[in-house]
Amino acid sequence: MSEAAHVPKTRDALHVDAAAITALEPYLPPAAPTSSSNASTPTKPYTTLTFATSLDSALALAPGTQTLLSGPASKAMTHHLRSRHAAILVGAGTARVDDPSLNCRAEGVGGYGGEGLDGQPRPVVVDPSAGWDFGDDGDGDGEGKGKIAKVLKLALDGRGRAPWVVVREGTAVPPKRRALLERCGGRYFALPTENNEPGGRIAWKAILALLAREGISSVMVEGGAGVINALLEPSNAGLVDAVVVTLAPTWLGEGAVTVAPGIRRDEGGGRIPVARLRDVQWCPLGEDVVLCGRMR
Amino acid sequence: MSEAAHVPKTRDALHVDAAAITALEPYLPPAAPTSSSNASTPTKPYTTLTFATSLDSALALAPGTQTLLSGPASKAMTHHLRSRHAAILVGAGTARVDDPSLNCRAEGVGGYGGEGLDGQPRPVVVDPSAGWDFGDDGDGDGEGKGKIAKVLKLALDGRGRAPWVVVREGTAVPPKRRALLERCGGRYFALPTENNEPGGRIAWKAILALLAREGISSVMVEGGAGVINALLEPSNAGLVDAVVVTLAPTWLGEGAVTVAPGIRRDEGGGRIPVARLRDVQWCPLGEDVVLCGRMR
Repeated sequence: MSEAAHVPKTRDALHVDAAAITALEPYLPPAAPTSSSNASTPTKPYTTLTFATSLDSALALAPGTQTLLSGPASKAMTHHLRSRHAAILVGAGTARVDDPSLNCRAEGVGGYGGEGLDGQPRPVVVDPSAGWDFGDDGDGDGEGKGKIAKVLKLALDGRGRAPWVVVREGTAVPPKRRALLERCGGRYFALPTENNEPGGRIAWKAILALLAREGISSVMVEGGAGVINALLEPSNAGLVDAVVVTLAPTWLGEGAVTVAPGIRRDEGGGRIPVARLRDVQWCPLGEDVVLCGRMR
Repeated sequence: MSEAAHVPKTRDALHVDAAAITALEPYLPPAAPTSSSNASTPTKPYTTLTFATSLDSALALAPGTQTLLSGPASKAMTHHLRSRHAAILVGAGTARVDDPSLNCRAEGVGGYGGEGLDGQPRPVVVDPSAGWDFGDDGDGDGEGKGKIAKVLKLALDGRGRAPWVVVREGTAVPPKRRALLERCGGRYFALPTENNEPGGRIAWKAILALLAREGISSVMVEGGAGVINALLEPSNAGLVDAVVVTLAPTWLGEGAVTVAPGIRRDEGGGRIPVARLRDVQWCPLGEDVVLCGRMR
């Protein structure tokens, strides 16, 4: 058996543009959390909101479809970002529609040239009603009769971590589904809704606090539209440390799924912009541009 | 009387960033139209579509309001663009709501340090129903009892050209209004609608052909939303030579006035992107970015 057989597969590893890495650096969480004797447990991870849109602010052509917007250089940049965060978070709609890998395929991370799961972020799926059906192949080895979600398959293959799924407290999870998730190394977490309202929203503050309690020092929030719009709202903006938006030079047209946060008014009732970034940097990358900034 | 009194006012002249000028150059019309013995009269001017939006593709917070989106460097860049086009075109809604100057305030053009009206573009307002009321001060000297539109005041002050207004053929223009426009040096033009439909649209091809016939070699189309969305449609995209979009790092929120071209479908009825730019260049400018490209 040749030595090469022991080297993890790197065929689909992505090479990241050095200029993009430099430009992004000031917006990334510290490479290793600083330990200080007087530091208390943080109430939330370093939170980066990141997504790609068209010029007409669209994430996808239509609900329930996945649209390739950005180019290969932007994709590699996204995987560099993933390598620098302890977790990736998406809503259940995105998990269902896109069947995303939610792992990191940057050259050198665990499973892509590196050891173990080094540099692989923890996927987190916010699924209040426990509606995300990630499949059931019977024995959880990823080779059975059924089809399982990519994120679980990658975990079984040692090329990513198994997901954590956040549901509304009191929501029933099918026992077989829970068993499959746990066999893959994942977990369900239940959180109360805001004001304990039945069927209500789980506060973003509570979700981020859960992640901090579980030792997650940084999280990259990737979508979908509902998640992004909620985090751009003034009431949640203080939770976001950095924003990284990739823009592609295209227009998708009316009726697309868009990033369009709600209305904001001043004291007199007049409309004002919902959010504006500060410490702005634009980094052209292939045909796209990457916008980095912080919430005001 | 000192010599200084003869020097045109330059207090509000704008200085343009040299890097921005260089970046834009490949997308601009030739500085002087080339005269060639075998060149026939062009059927349309060199047409540049240009506008500024938020990240959620908004031009303004609400219908009928003007929203300052881009910074001072982007504003100066816009005036450089204006200096390089023979005309600026807007829809009547924009003329009514924004009361735009539609002149060029770049350092060195006529009225801003330069001679006569050198470098001042011709304002063109597309107003099919002749609804744009640019005011009437009685004698057209800009000093009377009524308020006249900025664009007319500037023409009377020798700091810009008087507008040309394009109306639907057969639309009645109030005689006093026509007289005021002509006293300022402007003109009304009447064009037939598509298929001669009463109350219908005037084809963009016909508007651009009119400008070419009147000796306009280049036109910069600035808005508003209806005009921009129409020119991004595949049926009109061939009329557009270059696109220059300024993006500001802000989100205005739901219900804003947006650039959102109509839906486009492939032969099978599936949705596809409405438009994608080619020969793309992103030029960071202050807190904004300027995107230059061509329609595919």
